[in-house]
Amino acid sequence: MLEAHKSDLIGEVPIGAVIVHNGKIVGRGHNLREHSQQACDHAEVMAISDANRTLRSWRLVDCTLYVTLEPCIMCSGAIVNSRIDRVVFGARDPKAGAVASLYGLLNDARLNHQVEVEEGVLADQAAMMLKRFFKAARKRNKQRKQQ
Amino acid sequence: MLEAHKSDLIGEVPIGAVIVHNGKIVGRGHNLREHSQQACDHAEVMAISDANRTLRSWRLVDCTLYVTLEPCIMCSGAIVNSRIDRVVFGARDPKAGAVASLYGLLNDARLNHQVEVEEGVLADQAAMMLKRFFKAARKRNKQRKQQ
Repeated sequence: MLEAHKSDLIGEVPIGAVIVHNGKIVGRGHNLREHSQQACDHAEVMAISDANRTLRSWRLVDCTLYVTLEPCIMCSGAIVNSRIDRVVFGARDPKAGAVASLYGLLNDARLNHQVEVEEGVLADQAAMMLKRFFKAARKRNKQRKQQ
Repeated sequence: MLEAHKSDLIGEVPIGAVIVHNGKIVGRGHNLREHSQQACDHAEVMAISDANRTLRSWRLVDCTLYVTLEPCIMCSGAIVNSRIDRVVFGARDPKAGAVASLYGLLNDARLNHQVEVEEGVLADQAAMMLKRFFKAARKRNKQRKQQ
C-alpha cells in the first residue's frame, strides 16, 4: 500500500508492488507511466526489474509478488517470464485484469511456468484509493473544461 | 533481422525488433535477458522503451512494430499498453506465442486497444537463425557434460 501511495502522491494512478524473498523485500515498484512516459513502467514490472537487480538474476525463484491491483496482460506475462512462485493481489480489475477477470494467464498449463494466486488482500483499501484518485481526476478535468 | 543478429553475436537467443513511425525507425531492441539478467529485456520491450524515449511519449500512435518471432504474453501486453497500431512478425512461437499460437491477445475486443497483425515476413530466415542457435547451444551443453 505504501508503494501505491508513492504513485498517488505524484499524481499517478496509485498502484504499488513489492517482491519478497526469504522474508525480505527484494523489489519495490509503483506506477510511473506518466512521469517517465514509458508504457511498461507499471508497478509490477518496476518491482520485477528491481528484484532482478537485487538478486542478480532474471529468475525470481521462491519469490512472492504483492500488488494492490490485479495484474494486466503485460505484467502477468512478466510474472510468468520471471518465474515468480506466488502472486497476492488486492482488488480485481474488471477491464484489464489478466489473472482472474479477463484471463487466467498465471495458471495456463500450456506455459512453462504456473503461479500460485491469492486475491482480495487489502482489496477494499486498494479499491478505495483508486476510486478516490479517479474521482479527483474527473473533478480536475471538469474544472479545466469550465475554465 | 539485424537486431536479432546482435543478440546472436553475444550468445543470446536471437530475436530482434524495430519500431517505425512515419517511415523512420524510432525504436530498436534485441533480446538481452542473459546479459542484463532482467526478465523483461525481450526485444519488443526494449524497442518499445526506446521508442517511448525517442517520441517522448508512452503512446506509440501510428507506429508499426516489426519483430522476428511471435510476441509472448508480456510483449503482447506491452504492445497493447503502448497503443501500437500494427505488428508484423516473422516466425510463430508454438510454445509461448500469444498473438496467434496460444492466444490472440492483440485482437481482444474486450481490451481498450486492438492491433493489426501481419505474420510470416522473413519467417524462414528468423526460424533458421533460432534453430541454428538452439542446435549450437545443445551441442555446447553436450560437450560440457562429456568433459
